[in-house]
Amino acid sequence: MASLEIYRPREITSYDQGVFTTKEVPVVQETPLTLFLNHAELVTMVCSPGAYQELGVGFLVSEGLVQQPADIVGMSLREEVGVLQIETSCPIPQTGTFLRRHIASCCGKSRAGLYFINDARQLKPIESDTRYSAQHLLQIINLLEERSSTFRLTGGVHSAALADQNGIICMYEDIGRHNAVDKVLGYAFLNEINTEDKCLLLSGRVASEILIKAARAHIPVVLSRTAPTGLTIDLAEELNITVVGFARGDRFSVYSHPERVIS
Amino acid sequence: MASLEIYRPREITSYDQGVFTTKEVPVVQETPLTLFLNHAELVTMVCSPGAYQELGVGFLVSEGLVQQPADIVGMSLREEVGVLQIETSCPIPQTGTFLRRHIASCCGKSRAGLYFINDARQLKPIESDTRYSAQHLLQIINLLEERSSTFRLTGGVHSAALADQNGIICMYEDIGRHNAVDKVLGYAFLNEINTEDKCLLLSGRVASEILIKAARAHIPVVLSRTAPTGLTIDLAEELNITVVGFARGDRFSVYSHPERVIS
Repeated sequence: MASLEIYRPREITSYDQGVFTTKEVPVVQETPLTLFLNHAELVTMVCSPGAYQELGVGFLVSEGLVQQPADIVGMSLREEVGVLQIETSCPIPQTGTFLRRHIASCCGKSRAGLYFINDARQLKPIESDTRYSAQHLLQIINLLEERSSTFRLTGGVHSAALADQNGIICMYEDIGRHNAVDKVLGYAFLNEINTEDKCLLLSGRVASEILIKAARAHIPVVLSRTAPTGLTIDLAEELNITVVGFARGDRFSVYSHPERVIS
Repeated sequence: MASLEIYRPREITSYDQGVFTTKEVPVVQETPLTLFLNHAELVTMVCSPGAYQELGVGFLVSEGLVQQPADIVGMSLREEVGVLQIETSCPIPQTGTFLRRHIASCCGKSRAGLYFINDARQLKPIESDTRYSAQHLLQIINLLEERSSTFRLTGGVHSAALADQNGIICMYEDIGRHNAVDKVLGYAFLNEINTEDKCLLLSGRVASEILIKAARAHIPVVLSRTAPTGLTIDLAEELNITVVGFARGDRFSVYSHPERVIS
């Protein structure tokens, strides 16, 4: 949480109409903020850098925990460790159920930040010699888009798919990016499909939690129509996962482990 | 969870270049699924209808709770109540912390479904005579897009803003849709801004949880560049909130309480 920049430049491998080059692009940052309410840990959110007090207070408003400005009697931010403490004038009961429900309401909020990174780093790096040709990656991501019929109709869902050298194996659309990925991983698990040489395709952003899902399923390549975050790229480098983003038409960007993408 | 359709037709009020008409459009559905692991409640996810077993198993894979097909010894789905039960060959310890972390990892997962709907229905309907002109709504949503500089650079963030008859009051960009909204609500709270006649602007989808955030802050109008879900529209009707979607250029669609949008 040292930086307040919402994005930072990073060097990536770009593929455009058959040619690989290196260039610098802006990458959106992702950082955990843990909220303590009256000295008890309430929730950890993974967010863009900045406006941490607004985020913490807004979370309390959204959850109906504070009603008026006088309800908040103290607030202190320890930016270097990503911790915001808020004290309220009246005690707010935090039973297990209460805690659970409020944490569970957190699309966009994440597992406890301190655990989060450590958890990811306890995962073993992927060992895989799998290679995908640039042409094949473009074929399967364009196929994903072609098949995303619900999105075209409603504009409301994300799609995820599992693919190999032969094409798409299974595909799901869901209102939640994470749900679509979980449905793919569940399908592979239930059908005893070895995922260690597969590619995970996404219509949506590759947040760090999506990368961790891929790592747990031992998938070496993650391919998206949109962007990974800075934290995703850091974890992907450590976990030996190839992350390819902005794959559309005849171009894409490789953010980590480009050795798995060949001409 | 009666229907497996990922979207359903709904009648809406359409505005296009100065003319209001009524038409039927497809709206993406949203439904809660509660996962019980070895007879203990683990998590509730709000998802698109269908593939519930894949979703439940995929969640366990993603969270590292199962490793191989033999780990799962029983599974039963009660679709009518939205409950999936999974039994594993080895017990999986669920301490409070464990439970919490795994629920907390749920971008796209939601608060317990049974609570979820009930909670929303305990909120009071908004009482507000606020009206916005069609022209003003288009001005502010187009302004939101103009100002969304980070999205244009990185493709990785959502934006949210608070506006009134005079224009945009505050705006935030964040990797999480919910975070961006919480930052807006936190800003309003910290600056003692009365939100009862305001409009909440979003670049992203209006899922039911976003609508509940607006309801808690007493905001009568929610305006988005993309789509609301079916559950959002149902709740918006009950909570007396005007939901406007697909607002771009010179057109938009009003999904609930069109009386607040005037020529």
